[in-house]
Formats: sequence, C-alpha cells, structure tokens
Amino acid sequence: MFRPSSIAVVGASRNREKIGNIITRNLLATFRGKIYPVNNKAEKVENLQAYKSLKEIPGDVDLAIISVPREYVVQVMEDAVEKQVKAAIVITAGFKEIGEEGAKLEEQLVSVAKKGGIRFLGPNTMGLISPDYNGTFAYANITRGNIALVVQSGGIGAYMLDWAQRTRTGISFLVSMGNQADVKEYEVIEYLSRDPETRAIFVYLEGVSDGEKFLDVVPEATQRKPVIFIKGGATSKGAEAVKTHTGSLAGSYEVFRAAIRTVGGIFVEDLGDFLNLSRLVTSSEPINEDILVITNSGGHGVLTSDAIVRNNLNMVELPERIKDELRKVLPPTSLPKNPLDLSGDAGRDRYMEALKIVQDLDCTKLVIVQSLPVVSDSEVAKVLLNFKGKGIVAVTMGVDEDSAMRILESASIPAFNMPESAIRAIRYFTTKPVVRKKIRVAQPINSALELVKGKQYLRDYEALQLMEIYGIRTPKWGIAQSEEEAQRVADNIGYPVVMKISTDTPVHKTEMKGVVMNVEKEQVKQVYKELSKITKRVLIQEQLTGLETFVGGIKDPVFGHSVVVGSGGIYVEVLKNVGHAIAPVYEDEALEILKESKVHDMLTARKRNYDEGSLIRTIVSVSRLIVDLNVKEMDINPLIVNEKGAFAVDVRIVF
Amino acid sequence: MFRPSSIAVVGASRNREKIGNIITRNLLATFRGKIYPVNNKAEKVENLQAYKSLKEIPGDVDLAIISVPREYVVQVMEDAVEKQVKAAIVITAGFKEIGEEGAKLEEQLVSVAKKGGIRFLGPNTMGLISPDYNGTFAYANITRGNIALVVQSGGIGAYMLDWAQRTRTGISFLVSMGNQADVKEYEVIEYLSRDPETRAIFVYLEGVSDGEKFLDVVPEATQRKPVIFIKGGATSKGAEAVKTHTGSLAGSYEVFRAAIRTVGGIFVEDLGDFLNLSRLVTSSEPINEDILVITNSGGHGVLTSDAIVRNNLNMVELPERIKDELRKVLPPTSLPKNPLDLSGDAGRDRYMEALKIVQDLDCTKLVIVQSLPVVSDSEVAKVLLNFKGKGIVAVTMGVDEDSAMRILESASIPAFNMPESAIRAIRYFTTKPVVRKKIRVAQPINSALELVKGKQYLRDYEALQLMEIYGIRTPKWGIAQSEEEAQRVADNIGYPVVMKISTDTPVHKTEMKGVVMNVEKEQVKQVYKELSKITKRVLIQEQLTGLETFVGGIKDPVFGHSVVVGSGGIYVEVLKNVGHAIAPVYEDEALEILKESKVHDMLTARKRNYDEGSLIRTIVSVSRLIVDLNVKEMDINPLIVNEKGAFAVDVRIVF
Repeated sequence: MFRPSSIAVVGASRNREKIGNIITRNLLATFRGKIYPVNNKAEKVENLQAYKSLKEIPGDVDLAIISVPREYVVQVMEDAVEKQVKAAIVITAGFKEIGEEGAKLEEQLVSVAKKGGIRFLGPNTMGLISPDYNGTFAYANITRGNIALVVQSGGIGAYMLDWAQRTRTGISFLVSMGNQADVKEYEVIEYLSRDPETRAIFVYLEGVSDGEKFLDVVPEATQRKPVIFIKGGATSKGAEAVKTHTGSLAGSYEVFRAAIRTVGGIFVEDLGDFLNLSRLVTSSEPINEDILVITNSGGHGVLTSDAIVRNNLNMVELPERIKDELRKVLPPTSLPKNPLDLSGDAGRDRYMEALKIVQDLDCTKLVIVQSLPVVSDSEVAKVLLNFKGKGIVAVTMGVDEDSAMRILESASIPAFNMPESAIRAIRYFTTKPVVRKKIRVAQPINSALELVKGKQYLRDYEALQLMEIYGIRTPKWGIAQSEEEAQRVADNIGYPVVMKISTDTPVHKTEMKGVVMNVEKEQVKQVYKELSKITKRVLIQEQLTGLETFVGGIKDPVFGHSVVVGSGGIYVEVLKNVGHAIAPVYEDEALEILKESKVHDMLTARKRNYDEGSLIRTIVSVSRLIVDLNVKEMDINPLIVNEKGAFAVDVRIVF
Repeated sequence: MFRPSSIAVVGASRNREKIGNIITRNLLATFRGKIYPVNNKAEKVENLQAYKSLKEIPGDVDLAIISVPREYVVQVMEDAVEKQVKAAIVITAGFKEIGEEGAKLEEQLVSVAKKGGIRFLGPNTMGLISPDYNGTFAYANITRGNIALVVQSGGIGAYMLDWAQRTRTGISFLVSMGNQADVKEYEVIEYLSRDPETRAIFVYLEGVSDGEKFLDVVPEATQRKPVIFIKGGATSKGAEAVKTHTGSLAGSYEVFRAAIRTVGGIFVEDLGDFLNLSRLVTSSEPINEDILVITNSGGHGVLTSDAIVRNNLNMVELPERIKDELRKVLPPTSLPKNPLDLSGDAGRDRYMEALKIVQDLDCTKLVIVQSLPVVSDSEVAKVLLNFKGKGIVAVTMGVDEDSAMRILESASIPAFNMPESAIRAIRYFTTKPVVRKKIRVAQPINSALELVKGKQYLRDYEALQLMEIYGIRTPKWGIAQSEEEAQRVADNIGYPVVMKISTDTPVHKTEMKGVVMNVEKEQVKQVYKELSKITKRVLIQEQLTGLETFVGGIKDPVFGHSVVVGSGGIYVEVLKNVGHAIAPVYEDEALEILKESKVHDMLTARKRNYDEGSLIRTIVSVSRLIVDLNVKEMDINPLIVNEKGAFAVDVRIVF
C-alpha cells in the first residue's frame, strides 16, 4: 500500500469533476509506476488505456484505489481478490458512518478482503499520499518533507495539506484513515514511526479502533519520534446512563487524553496549535522553557510576557554582565531587562547588536519584530540568519511578515506571526512525555473474588470490606440492625460518630436525608430510630476530619480501566478539577494526576502535613482493584486525607 | 487635535529614515490643510518651506506634532504656548516610562502646557490618525472605515493598522495614548463614542490613568456603541506585601476585568480574538448564540461543534420539516442534522440548496468550506452573497481562502479562516454587557465609625461586632480570659463549640495551631489551658456546618473598592475560582459573581437548600462597608452558608 509498483484506479471517470478522475490525474502527476484506469464504459481515461474490470488488466496490480458507487464496492473487492491485488484503498463513502445498512455492507467488504488476503484502507477515506504517489482527491501540489499526517477526516487532511503548502511545510505521508474497517490507526502510526523520511507524526483522531492495541503498540512509536495528537469530538458524551460520579466525569475525551499521556504522545487541543507545532518539530533550533523576549514594541513585549507566564514557561533573568553590555548598545530610552524592548526606532543594527550580546545565553530567544517604516520584518529576518542554532524563535508581525517568514523558513528557523502561537508551540514542544506501558494481567485476591462473586453491586459495608482486603484504610465502622446494637457499635467506635442508612444499591444518601453527622453517645438510639424509617440496617462510622478527596475507577469502552482523582464532596461535581490515568498506575503517575487535579496543592497548603503518600498508595490500589475484579464503575467519595492517612468513607462499586 | 486646519511638525527631518520625516510624508499623503515643517537647519523638508521654530510660522497653528530630542521638548512646548498653538502630540520618548529623571521632565512638560492652555497627547506616543490626517510614523496606507483604535502601545497600534490593512478593515481613528501625561484614555473613549463615523471602539490598555474617572465616564460611551478592551500586563503582580487573601487574589488584572464589566465594555483576553471581533462588529448580519454548522468536511463539523459547546454557545436542533426538505437535496451519505455535513463531494449547488432550506431559521448559519478540487472557497463565497442578511458567518479554509474572504468582506459578510476564531468572536459579540454605574458616597453608620476610629486593624472580636452592625450574621460567640469564663461562655453557646486564640492582628490561626474544633462541655477548660499558652484571650464560637465560602474586599490602587467572592478555606487559595466586582454592588451583580466563582453551583448542588439570598445580602453589605469605612483589605473566611443563612466565622480587616 505504501510503496506500490503498479496502481489501478477503479472508477476512473473521464469527467474531470469526478473523484475517480482527480485521483487518476494526481497519480499521473506523481507516480512513476504503472497506472491502470478501470472504467466499464471508456476506452481511454486521461490518455491512458482503460480496462473494463480489474481482471482484464494484463500486468500485476499492487494496489487498487476504489472509487465506484457504494453498491459495486464489494464486487470490485471480489475482483481484486481474483486478480491477486495486494492492497486496496476504498474511497467510496456510505458505510458504517451512515447507519446499520452501511455497516452490513462494510462487514461484507471486510470479510471478502480478509478471505482474499487483501489489506485495505477505508472505506470513506480521502486516500493516501506517500513519497511515491498521491492517491487522494486532494490537490496534487505537495511540498515533500518530514512530517507525516494521519487523519480520521478527509476534510481535515485536505486542510492540513493546504496549510502545509501555504506555510512551506514538507509532508512525507498523508494517511486518511476513513472508517478503519481493516487497516487501523495504530498500525499506520507504527509503520510511520519506522519510516526514515518521517521526523514527526501528526494524528487527528475522532476515535480509536481498539484501545488495548493502541496502548500496546503506540508507546514504541513515540519512543522513536514525536507523535502529536488532536481529538475531534471533545464534547460529545456517551448517552449511557451512569451510576457513579466517575461515570459522569469520565467522558471519553478525558480518558483519551490520559491514554495519550500513557503512550508518550503530545496532546494538543486546538487545530491551530496542532499545525503550529510542526514549525518547531521540523527545526533543529535548541529550544527550552526559559525565554528571553526581544522586541521593538513595548506592547508586544507585555502581551508576550503575559502569555509566557500563563503557559507556565519561564521569563529568564538577565545576568548583570549581559545587562552591562546591553546598556552600551541600547538608547537611553531602553532598559536592559526581559522583555528587552529595543524601542520603536530600533533598526536592523540594534537587533544585531543585542543578539550578539545574548546569543550564548542558554535560553530560547523569542525575537518579535513589528514592521515599522524604520525597520522591516525582512531586514530583521536576515539578521536572524546569523544566529541560527542559538535557540531563535521568530515572530514577524506587520506589513511584510509573510516574506520575512519565508526567509526564516528557508533557513529552518521557526517563525510565527502571533506571539501567543509561538508561546503555545514552545510549551507543547518542551513538554517531555514519559512512556508508560500498561500491563493489565488480572491478579485478583481470592477473598476479594469470593466477596464480589455473582454480584452486580456491592452493599456499602461489603465495599468497605473490599477496601480492607486491598489494603485501603477505612474509618472504624460497624453495622447495626437495632437501637441496642447501634449503641454497642457506636460505643466501641468512640464519639462523635456518623450514622447512615445502609443500602443494597449505590444511592445518594445525603439527598435521601440518610446521613447524620456529629452523633453523641446519648443521641445514638434516637438517630437509629429515625434512620430505620428508611432502612433497618444502619452503618455507623468514626467521624474523621481532613481533606475530602475523591478516587474513582471506570471501565472506558475504548481504553478499558482508568482511574480518576479529584477533590471530594460537591467539589468534584461542581469544579471538575480532576486527573485521569489509564490503570494500573504506579506511584509517580498517581502523584502526577494529584497535581493535575490540584489535590496535591490542597494537601500541602498552609503547611499542612496531610498524608499524601497514603493517598498515592490508595490510588495505586484502586487502579489494581478495578483491573483485577473487572469493575465497571467505582468511586470512593469522600476519601478523607489527614495527618494519619487516607480513609475511604463511602465506597460505591458497580460490576 | 482631532480636526485641525493646520499642523506643524517640529523636528521634521530631511532624513527619510527619521521619525520626523516619516510623519511629514504621512501628512503630505493625507492632510488637506496647511503643513509647516519645523527644522532649525533646513530650508525645505520634502519640498515644503521649513521654519526654524514654531514662532517663525506665519499662519495659525492648530496642532503641533513634536518629535525632537528629549532635552528640547519642554522648550518646544514653551514656544507652542507663545505661538498660541491649540493642541500638541508629543512623539518623543524617554519620560516617565524610563524612571525618575524622565518623570521630572514629564512634570515640567505638563506644567508648561497646562499654564499655556494646550492639551497634548503623549509623550512617548506613535501619534494620531483621524479621518483627516495621519499624524503617526506608521505606514500611511490606511483603509478608511468605522473602527476606532485606542492603544497604549505604539507597537500594538502599528500592528493593528497592518492587520486592518491586510484584512481590509476600515479605520476611523487610531489614537496612540503614550504616557497619558495630559489627555487620558477615558477622554478619548468619550470623544470617539460621540463620533458619527465610528461604529465600535477597540482599546488596548496596560493601565488606567484614573480609575474613578474611568468608572464615571466610560459607562456613557458604552451605551452609545460597543467598546472592546484588551489588557496588557495580565500577570504582573504588585510587589506590595499583603495581609489578607483578598490582597493576594486581587491582582489588578482581575479588578480591571471587573471594572470593564461595570462600565459595560466587552473584555477580550487574546489579541487575535480582539482583532477578529471587528469582523462581526462592522457587519450587519443578525447573529445570535444559536448556531447551525454547514460544512463539506465531517472533521471540520466535529471540531467546530466542540468549540461551540466549549464556548457556551448553542448547537440548534433542526425542526423536522427542515430535515425532511434537506433529505430531498442531500445524497444518501449525508444525514440532515447539525453539524450539517454536505459531504466531500458537495459542489456549489449543494451549498445553495441547503442554504435555501435553512435560510429563514432564526439562528447563526456558520458556513464552513474546505477547498477541494470539486469545490472552491470562492465559488461558495459567491453562493453566500445570495443569503446576505440571513445570519451568515463564513469560514473559508484551504487554497483559495483569501480570495473567498475578499469576496465576502466586500459584501460585509463576516469571514474567518479558522472555525475556533469565528466561534470565539461570536461568543464575545453575543455577550450583552450591562452598564452598572457606581455611586460611591460613603454613608457610614455612627457606631461603626466609633468602633474603627484610629485603628489600623480590628481585633477578631471587634471585626465580629462590626459584622453585626452591618447586618451580617455571625455564629453565636463570646470571649473568655479564664478557664471559668470559657466554661460559662461555652455553656451559653451550646455544644460542640470551636475555640480559637484571639489575636490583636490578623494572623493564620490554623497555622499557629490556635484553633480547636468539636470541643465538648467537659473539654472546655483543658482546651482553654492549652490555647492560653499562645494568647490569654480565647474566642469561643458555635460550631456550624455548611458550605465554606469566602467574601473579601480590597481597595485597588486604580479602581478603588472592590469585592471578591469564592469558595472558602483552602479552596480559595488553591483553586482561585473567584468572582470580582467593583463596589458597591447590588443584588444582581452579587449573583453574577457567585456564578462566576462557581459558588452558586455549590450552593445548589445535590438539591441543597442553602441560603443563597443571605449570602447575596452579605456581599452587598461588605461592598457597602468597605466604601463607608475606607477599608484597605478585608476578608470573611470562612463565611459558612447553610439552610439557615450565611454566617461570618472569621473576619480580618485592615484599614
């Protein structure tokens, strides 16, 4: 598929507005091997001999690109099998993406191809561009280079090609995945990671075909070269009813993001950022998170500093000796500081002098030029060519920004036309992803298996027992079925206690007015009496103080088990400051998601000595437990953390 | 200054690279009145008769543009006074912005001009562009139109002019404010709001000259036309040590944002968004927050829907009759839903047919075109001309996006080249600002005045007394100076109680281990004994449960008194979900900032019945109190809100 010697275009029309014709012309413009148009009516297509069917082609066919009406696609695939075609690209749409009828046709197509040993891309794809050929119906004029694009939307692929062309970004491959009926995105990523012409892989996904395989295969690819992901469909939530908070929080977007972290990919939210990042990836400037801003406009300096701080990058402090040297070349109206404002009357020479002084500082030099009658972007761009390799990132703004960018790009110096875009690209580029391959072999504990056997839910006290089996601490607790038993249990625990209704299914006890806090010795029987109007069984717990946190687990339909952490109680619902990770997690990753969710900050605020280690161990245990017992959804909320440890107060589990 | 008949350029050089020369040429290219170059060496500048000084000019001079070395500026201003010049623009830099010496020179300049009755812009300004003349050293080729730009950075001004030129956005005025030694930004905003040629005012500010005046004058301007603000210097924090949380939270950026809301302005964070908004402001398409997306690329539709949901806009549901009509014109591979994917083989006709069907729906039609060989952006742009006035916003992407944008712009149909940019512009545009003029007459209560008289801080119990005077509720409380008194006070309150050290200055009592919760009758004396090791005076309070919130007040150095609300306890420090408003506030604004801070969501989560009304009245009282008593900083943290009301537990006040 990627390096064919001969290609047949099935559905090669003579009409220049039809997709089959455009593909034929794109091949004519790019492919050096044999091209066989297949058209059941025409003798010739674009001056090439045409054939009535694949079977009539005299020579071997490595690849068939199929663009015929939907109802003929399966027949064409059967012909391809008979002709012993090695691979196919099915351009035609109208399969799984439009509903049940299309899905059936897609199944037929897969079965025919599988039986015949043909691997195929699509259906519903824009096609494939390799260094050898353009097998798409996008425009043919592509700059060759080192960026590979893998897209799950042909339109996005077409846009990226246009963008690459406009910004003179060189492309090695474009693979439009379509419905992924056969060839999957992880296979393509893996192939491209081994391709010597490709320096970085940019992937637009709307979904993943097989989460487990993705988690298994992609980590090896990201160790070879940067793989950058963007996801479409961020806000579409599954309509499935959910029983726990975790269920409602773990929208597939968050789990997707966690999966990208696990495999060591770079995750970007915005299409513009995604494309801009390619400018840094293809350059070899040494770029780090310490930034020195050099500009001829005070306002640009101010806005850029804002963007640097917002993006958690660092404004470097200039050393005194550098300041002294700068004072010699700056006018009295400019101060030697960062941002370094060369002032509105700065010409190319002032840029040159300042850059000479700072060139050996170990930092990124973000050079911003606002075109003015006294200086043009292009003049400064030429100055910058002298400092290639010194960590230069340019932002050219104003009338001749485009020609300045062209000068810089031809020297592989990254150039942008907005400071914010440059800053965000630097932020993503300097993020160092860690690959964390997940091994998901269930190693359940026998007593746990016995406890959960055949159950869809655990009762509240059973869930507490399960916590204890997995080494997760709980507040002292007991169950009472009468006033006397309640008194006895509470006396054993010590006062004050919390008393709750004890239910067989997961419910919001607070909403049912089923929780009473601060119960003292003399109140126990009365409280029991009240609560027993709702449930005869009452749960009595030691009343703990500390930070209320939340630890949950969910089985994502795509990526399988993952954990969620956040602040507990209502904060998890309202603030949605949560951290996600694919299970199982280890201690370092648990700490990372605690930081992401800001729980880490809360534990350490005000010189508190709350036991973060205990919380980390709890997260690790939960991530283990959900894999071992194949939990569908669970949450511990609250999990109270104080100086003595982390304690699971309320636990809900659904299998 | 804005409409002169004659202009002198003082410092009009013959050297074409000097600012004084560029200004002269810009005037020659734009100004129809008299131009007098002033140059003490040359006879002629750019073929105009030059004069040795202002005083030698034969005719009247309405406006002097001064671009001479810094040391001569005051002398030139003296000449201007003598010549009875009416207004001046001081281009020269090196005044207040570079330190003390410059500041002194600036004071001299102000005093000379004031005595002579001359109003002036600058110093350190790029100048002024009006419909009559270009008095700046930026490029002269400006498209005339309806957008006024007010900028506190010449560089940003130059960039905006370049941007306007490139995007064919018409400009009425550009006013580069410089140091605002005399003419202030609020005066210019007020002038422009009355200018009939100006439809919207875009303001880039780094600071405000006089917050009280700004709050007083700008609300009238925003009632006349949209005024859009962006602030530079978002992350620079005052170095001033602060005593309360409010102090550390109320960075001037947040107060600035609150001030913009108060005056009815539109506040934008990103320079790109700021500029993009002008495309909607200058169009007359009826645009609302209900969006229908029409595209030829599924991926573009998905990413755009994500952006719409993230920006709290609304994806409209198509009515059944519209769906039925669409089915007739769509191919079987397209479904009649929103986003409406016309499919990759859609040509101009399919856009035309679909738009005809949806044109009368009361919503914004966001039409996205990805250029493909089967359809070009320009073809669809021409289709869109037929639907002008139907709420069209276009996003043209791909090879001929620029020519398509030109077609649309010439018909005043707003066009963008990224969906995210269009969506954010629509979000800002559909925000309806409310003007809230603040009346800040102190109306202090006598007993409050007596309580605070001559004090820099209030003691903790005095602060509680002050709350009561202002009608803010507190938990039952008392002060004890001995074990016996402690027991008596606690018995009166009822158990459990909270016992705290009672200090004369605001401190973090928790960090000093000076707070004990859940104190029962038999523990009171022991706890008193422990606490009295830190302070003899101990504060005893009723222990309340409920949501911990935070209400603070601060005197901002620019905008004066403002209030802050947020979640209480450590959440305010870690999460920084806060809402700000300029004081005094009224009930509706208090609710708005509760929503902004998410406290509103917390109060109403899980069917709780927490007393939001009581919290709102507390915010209103605090905002009144800080104005009446001229409080420097105060915070109530926690302010516990439960079913019974809002109760101030800990209060710290600094005058």
